[in-house]
Amino acid sequence: MIRAILMTHPLARGADVGVLVRCVEECFECAAACTSCADACLAEDDLQELVACIRLDLDCADVCEATGCVALRQTAGEVSVLRALVESCVIACRACAEECEKHAEHHEHCRVCAAACRGCLQACQDLLATTR
Amino acid sequence: MIRAILMTHPLARGADVGVLVRCVEECFECAAACTSCADACLAEDDLQELVACIRLDLDCADVCEATGCVALRQTAGEVSVLRALVESCVIACRACAEECEKHAEHHEHCRVCAAACRGCLQACQDLLATTR
Amino acid sequence: MIRAILMTHPLARGADVGVLVRCVEECFECAAACTSCADACLAEDDLQELVACIRLDLDCADVCEATGCVALRQTAGEVSVLRALVESCVIACRACAEECEKHAEHHEHCRVCAAACRGCLQACQDLLATTR
Amino acid sequence: MIRAILMTHPLARGADVGVLVRCVEECFECAAACTSCADACLAEDDLQELVACIRLDLDCADVCEATGCVALRQTAGEVSVLRALVESCVIACRACAEECEKHAEHHEHCRVCAAACRGCLQACQDLLATTR
Repeated sequence: MIRAILMTHPLARGADVGVLVRCVEECFECAAACTSCADACLAEDDLQELVACIRLDLDCADVCEATGCVALRQTAGEVSVLRALVESCVIACRACAEECEKHAEHHEHCRVCAAACRGCLQACQDLLATTR
Repeated sequence: MIRAILMTHPLARGADVGVLVRCVEECFECAAACTSCADACLAEDDLQELVACIRLDLDCADVCEATGCVALRQTAGEVSVLRALVESCVIACRACAEECEKHAEHHEHCRVCAAACRGCLQACQDLLATTR
Repeated sequence: MIRAILMTHPLARGADVGVLVRCVEECFECAAACTSCADACLAEDDLQELVACIRLDLDCADVCEATGCVALRQTAGEVSVLRALVESCVIACRACAEECEKHAEHHEHCRVCAAACRGCLQACQDLLATTR
Repeated sequence: MIRAILMTHPLARGADVGVLVRCVEECFECAAACTSCADACLAEDDLQELVACIRLDLDCADVCEATGCVALRQTAGEVSVLRALVESCVIACRACAEECEKHAEHHEHCRVCAAACRGCLQACQDLLATTR
């Protein structure tokens, strides 16, 4: 869907749309995974051990959501805004992935969420490599 | 991904997860489509004719994003909050779809966005039919 | 600030701006209060008793944020979208206030958050009474 | 309100709360100003000249909203996430302020929005100076 609608944008510029589409998709998927993981943690018996995980999930969801929206826009933007935000997304995804990985053996949602964060981190780095 | 992480939730309850997953997915897809359509409209020559489309896109994106997040949460919620929000999502999606359809012949992004709104509207109605 | 910028809007229509400004302000204040209360709950010793509070805080923050944004927009909107969303905001604020009030004696942040929810609920009802 | 609820947080740490409160308040005010300015621009006769302003308003609103939420959280966070996001907020606010200032003579909402962006930019820089 992201690809479908970006291909109809009057300013979409062939070449790097693949990397952009991937980054936007990963940002929105990661935001959803973090929102769900924070909520699943709230229902776990070892909730007290998951406080940092919930906190970083909530931060990562906010950053990924904002990054996905800004990256989706193609009209008259400032590449410096996009780059700075994507860089902050890399940092939020890494922090959240590292925390989720500590709980991945006991909680499947942390394992799935860590994978979503790692995927988003990579897609953000790929976008940074093709934008300047 | 939405399905994958919801299946790992300690409180996910088999039966109606399919309808829920579909609603959450459609909400996030519709939010992305509306964000992209608003931005694509800004780059069109007939921008002046697209003012209502941009406005309704922005509203619909906000409502769909909130609805997707609330629907995703399974822990200790209030079904009355979910139902009222999903009902407002139906109304926002219908208003946005109707406006986008007026421009669908001239702008592919409006056509794609209208389809996303119609898909989300249906998924929201299906969720309402299975929740009370 | 909300009043200041709404007064500069080319379409702002004198009469009911007071009620609108109050609703928008209360929505954004309530979203912030809920975000902070959820986070403060995560740091409390009786975290296990606060799970429903955190959940309803997160839902209420999402609904208030979306409602504030839609209410702020004055150009070419659909009053049915605004009304439905404001109605869902009333329900989210009431649910969150009732839960926070259960913990208000032990946790000041729950007391402050409940008051913010009650203020937002009232401002939303006042807006509904002047819009159709 | 931001100050009131932060003062009730079990982890709020006296000293730099003033700078933090100011940053959070400015982020949410700036997000509201940008949302309103984008919408007011849509109602102007010279809409075609305001496309970049609308785009940067929307980006700045997204970044400020995320930054306000992450800054508001005090429990178990990662200061590197906050710093990176606040830095991206500085860049988004500067880009939006510079664009709004081009239209400030003709449009009061652009003047008010530019001032909100400048205020937020300063509050973000002050927070960066006290956090590490």
